[in-house]
This record gives sequence, structure tokens and C-alpha cells, in this order.
Amino acid sequence: MSSIIAEATTDMLTTYHELNGDIDVLYEEPSPLEFMRYVAKNRPLVVRRGCSKWLAVRTWNAHYLQDIMKDIPVGVAITPHGNADSVQKRPEDGSTYFVKPFELDEPFSTFLSYLQSSNAQTTVELVKYSQAQNDNLRGEYSHLYRDVEADIRWASIALQKEPDAINLWIGNKHSTTALHRDNYENIYCQIVGSKDFVLLAPVETACINEKFMPSAAYAADMSLDPDDPPAQVPCAVWDPDKPEENATRFSSLSKPLRIRLDPGDMLYLPACWYHKVSQDSSDEGICCSVNYWYDMDFEGTFFASNSFLRHMAWASTELKKAP
Amino acid sequence: MSSIIAEATTDMLTTYHELNGDIDVLYEEPSPLEFMRYVAKNRPLVVRRGCSKWLAVRTWNAHYLQDIMKDIPVGVAITPHGNADSVQKRPEDGSTYFVKPFELDEPFSTFLSYLQSSNAQTTVELVKYSQAQNDNLRGEYSHLYRDVEADIRWASIALQKEPDAINLWIGNKHSTTALHRDNYENIYCQIVGSKDFVLLAPVETACINEKFMPSAAYAADMSLDPDDPPAQVPCAVWDPDKPEENATRFSSLSKPLRIRLDPGDMLYLPACWYHKVSQDSSDEGICCSVNYWYDMDFEGTFFASNSFLRHMAWASTELKKAP
Repeated sequence: MSSIIAEATTDMLTTYHELNGDIDVLYEEPSPLEFMRYVAKNRPLVVRRGCSKWLAVRTWNAHYLQDIMKDIPVGVAITPHGNADSVQKRPEDGSTYFVKPFELDEPFSTFLSYLQSSNAQTTVELVKYSQAQNDNLRGEYSHLYRDVEADIRWASIALQKEPDAINLWIGNKHSTTALHRDNYENIYCQIVGSKDFVLLAPVETACINEKFMPSAAYAADMSLDPDDPPAQVPCAVWDPDKPEENATRFSSLSKPLRIRLDPGDMLYLPACWYHKVSQDSSDEGICCSVNYWYDMDFEGTFFASNSFLRHMAWASTELKKAP
Repeated sequence: MSSIIAEATTDMLTTYHELNGDIDVLYEEPSPLEFMRYVAKNRPLVVRRGCSKWLAVRTWNAHYLQDIMKDIPVGVAITPHGNADSVQKRPEDGSTYFVKPFELDEPFSTFLSYLQSSNAQTTVELVKYSQAQNDNLRGEYSHLYRDVEADIRWASIALQKEPDAINLWIGNKHSTTALHRDNYENIYCQIVGSKDFVLLAPVETACINEKFMPSAAYAADMSLDPDDPPAQVPCAVWDPDKPEENATRFSSLSKPLRIRLDPGDMLYLPACWYHKVSQDSSDEGICCSVNYWYDMDFEGTFFASNSFLRHMAWASTELKKAP
């Protein structure tokens, strides 16, 4: 029976890549209908210079941000290697965890200075990243909210909803976001510096070697602190940038899409696409992005069939589901 | 391993039906964007009175059709029980076939008279149906083409293509179309009489007990004539109207959607939805429909993942794929 799953999975991956190519690129904003065609296909789309006229893209720099935010406390994620929400081994016993960052609030000015000074160094002991994903641009960063659009009009019209969250990301070259997926339609807008995305379609779930891992968080001293009560989280163990390591029998059939966003560029990252994100700072040592999360549509074929694919991927790579 | 497939299939069917309800009904035509939202979800849509202003809906009756078509030869499908393209047993040896109709050309007037006279009878020896699905409204029935729209504007705009085929269906109450699926986005327009659809979502593929059957066709004497060279065709063996017969372990998890179309009503039947269609004649003993087939989009997640589901359904019901 497992050979039947393997054969059907191979068929699916081969068929998918025969029928789908690189990321489409537009040079002006799509209409709601044009955008909806990408939602229907669950295919990404880049809009070069799509948000280039936003006040944020034209005005944000270290001086401006400092001037607006001053000493307002902001949430900061701290990790030893710029590796929030990734799989790590605990040195003490070699056991593996899905590790969340150490989080604290600090004055924006302190955080910004650290980002700038640490960006100049090759290696640092602590990497900081403001990456709360809790609608923080309408929360603690609300003084900066006026510099972006309140929504992405063509997306709100097409999807018939307002964004569920608008998230601001401020970091530097030392942070990377590990391969993961979100149950959101995502419009990602690059403001300062650049971001490099590696994207895998949801049908490639059998390639990423998803395993259930116990969760933990970094403590203030960067030791690993397992969650209590214990919890299990599905994590991609395969890294498309190290394709030989931790591969499943299907990983070689993956065709990761790679795209760089520069200031003013927008990316439509469709629901449930796996993405890994790294970044390059501006000359001032910072990288800023804003993303709009729209609730995905759980109706229709996509969500239910995609969950099935994921279950089959766990089965085909002979992984056990957490109890 | 088969229990893993079974569990994931049960999960998928349960989740799908928790998240999806009955068919949406509109009372005016959708905009291209509104329509595209249904394409994106792969969910059906009824537009009551959507084509009620068409000349065809206002003028077609037996006299008008006779007047326009006269003795022009048309393709007619002939079966003993109104059962074209269905699974039948050969009486001689009890073996089972996917059976196509006997086909011949006859003058339209002869065909029409037969439809009308046979509709009045409870049982008939031969059932006739003009159901060519070869763009016949722009072919042998082209004199009637001016009475319908050349395309469905909101669909053509949304899908960025013209219809691949426009098919005319003329029959009476004795014909039923067995459960099957097509790789087309389908806009079905009811003109004369009514049609009753039973619809199953593509994710329900494990419910329909699809088996590979040798194909055959009725001969002129209504005996079964196996195809030579032999061919195997996947056929739904489960009939949602006889749910106890030929059921798979998943059939009871199916939730067939049922909808009746009256003259002037339109149905968007999304790509790959299973459908069974029966019909009631007008007072004059005929039933006429026109459908617009738009090529489905093979790009994106839907097609590749759907083929995977179908493979898994074959595996989970322990069917062998034809060699």
C-alpha cells in the first residue's frame, strides 16, 4: 500500500511541475479579478514596484523610525543565530526541538541601535528581530501605520474581507525565517532592504519531511526550555537550501521557486505555501517589511484536500502523527 | 497503511462537509469576479432565471424546432433504457461493461416525432437522445445557434477564454445520464422542460466506487458489442439514488447535492464534479438544454491534487488500476 502512495505522490509532483512554471511578475497592481485568478490557482504573484508610492517606502529610514517611535516599548524576539521558530538540537542531550525565540519588550530606540550595530558584524551573540505577527502595525507600532495603506484594495475586494492582521517586520541580515506555512492569504510588501523568498507549493508537502517535534523556547541565557505542558508541533525538517540533508524520497522532486523583493515590491504568497525567508539590510543596517494577512477560505476543495495530502505525506515518509 | 488512507479519507470527507453546505443560488447573473470566487472554491452555483431572456427560452417548442430544423440529419444516441454511457451487464455471460449508445443520423423531424410519441408511453423499447457533446449547436444544429448567447459573458471574462464547445441536448423523460465527471468548467442552461442534477464534489471520489470496466457499445439490435481493441474506462459503480448498492466504506459519508433546473435557469457545474442528470419533459414531450464547456485550468493546485485523491480512492477501495 505504501508503494501506491509513493507512486501517486510521485505522479502528483511530476504533473504539478509539468503544468506550473515560475512565478508570474506584474509591473502594475492587478485588478481584483486578475488577483482572484491567482487565488483560484493558489499560485504566487509578484507585483514589482506595487507599493513604491507608499509613504513608508519613500520615507522610512533609521532616522525617521527613531523620530516617530522614540522609546515606545516594542516586542523583540531574541535568538542566538537569527533562528526563531526553527528546529534545533539541545546540546545537553542531543534531543531535537521546535524552538521559539526568547521574547521581551524593549524601547524601540534600544532595539534599533542594536540592529544597526550588530548588522555591521559578521557574527553576533544575540540576534534581534521584531516579528510579532500579532497585528503589531496596528498595535505597538501604530504611529507608523499611517505610512502604509489600511488594506490592499484589490485583495480586500476580491476576497470580500479586510485584513485579519497587518504585521510589521524589522530586523537585519542575521535573521532567517525557517520553512513553514500559514493558513492565510498573504500580501507581503517590502519597505526597506530586501527579502529573499524560497517558495514551495502545498502539493510539495511530501518533500519537506514534516515531523512532529516537541516545542521549546530560548531562555534569556539562550538555553533551551521545553514547553510545559509538553506540546508537539509539525516542522519541516528538510531545508531547500541544503537539499541533501534530511531529504525524503520525494524531496528531489521539489522545485523551489526563488524570488527577491526589493523596496516597493509586493508578493502574493498564497495560502498554505511553504516559505523560507532571509533578508539583506539597507545601508543603514535594517530591513523592514509589512504583510497583510487575509483569512483563507476554508470552504471548497482546497483546504480539505490539502489536509489529506499532508496526512498522506506523513504516511508516505513513515512518520508518526503526534498522539 | 490502508487504514491510514482510510482514516485520512474519512477526515477529508467529514471536514469538507462541515465546511461546505448547499448550493448557492443567485437571482441575477454574477459579475466575472463573483463567478471567479466560485471557480476558486470549485463550488457549484445556480442562477435562477439567468437565461430567461434568451430567444431560445422564449421561443423553442416542438413546432418552432421542427420549423427551423426540418429534415436536417442529426446524430441520435439510442439505448434500450435511456442509459447511455452507463455500466450494464451483458445477459449472455453476466460480464459488466461501460456501454455507449448506438449512434445513427436521422432526419430531425423523425427524431422529434419519436421523442414526442415515446414520451407519452410508460415504457419504450428504444430511447432516443440527441446528446453529442461535440459542439453540435455550432455544428449540425447551427440553425438554432442564433437563439442562444455565443458565450456566457461573465464566464468568458473571468476565465479569459471562449467556450470550447456549445452542446445542445434534446431528449425526453426516458433518458438519464449516469454519474460521471468532465475536465471542464460547465455552464448548463435549461431551455425546455426540466433537469434534475445530483452533484458530488471531486473530494468525494472515494465514495463513488470507481472501477475500471471494459467498454462496449449497443449494436442496432441493442445487444452489447465489446470494443475492439478492448479498452478500460473508469466508471462510478455507486449510484447516489441507490445508496445501499455497490457502496464503498466511504459512500455513506457522501452528501449529494440535488438541484432542479427549470426553463431559464443556469447551473455552474465546476470542473471534475460528479453529476447524474435526469429530466422531465415539457407538455409537448421534449426536454432541451444547452451547455457551455470551458477548458478547465490545469495549472495550480487543483488538477494535480485531485488526480492524487482519485488514485488514493482507487487504492482505498482496493481497486486495481487498468494496465
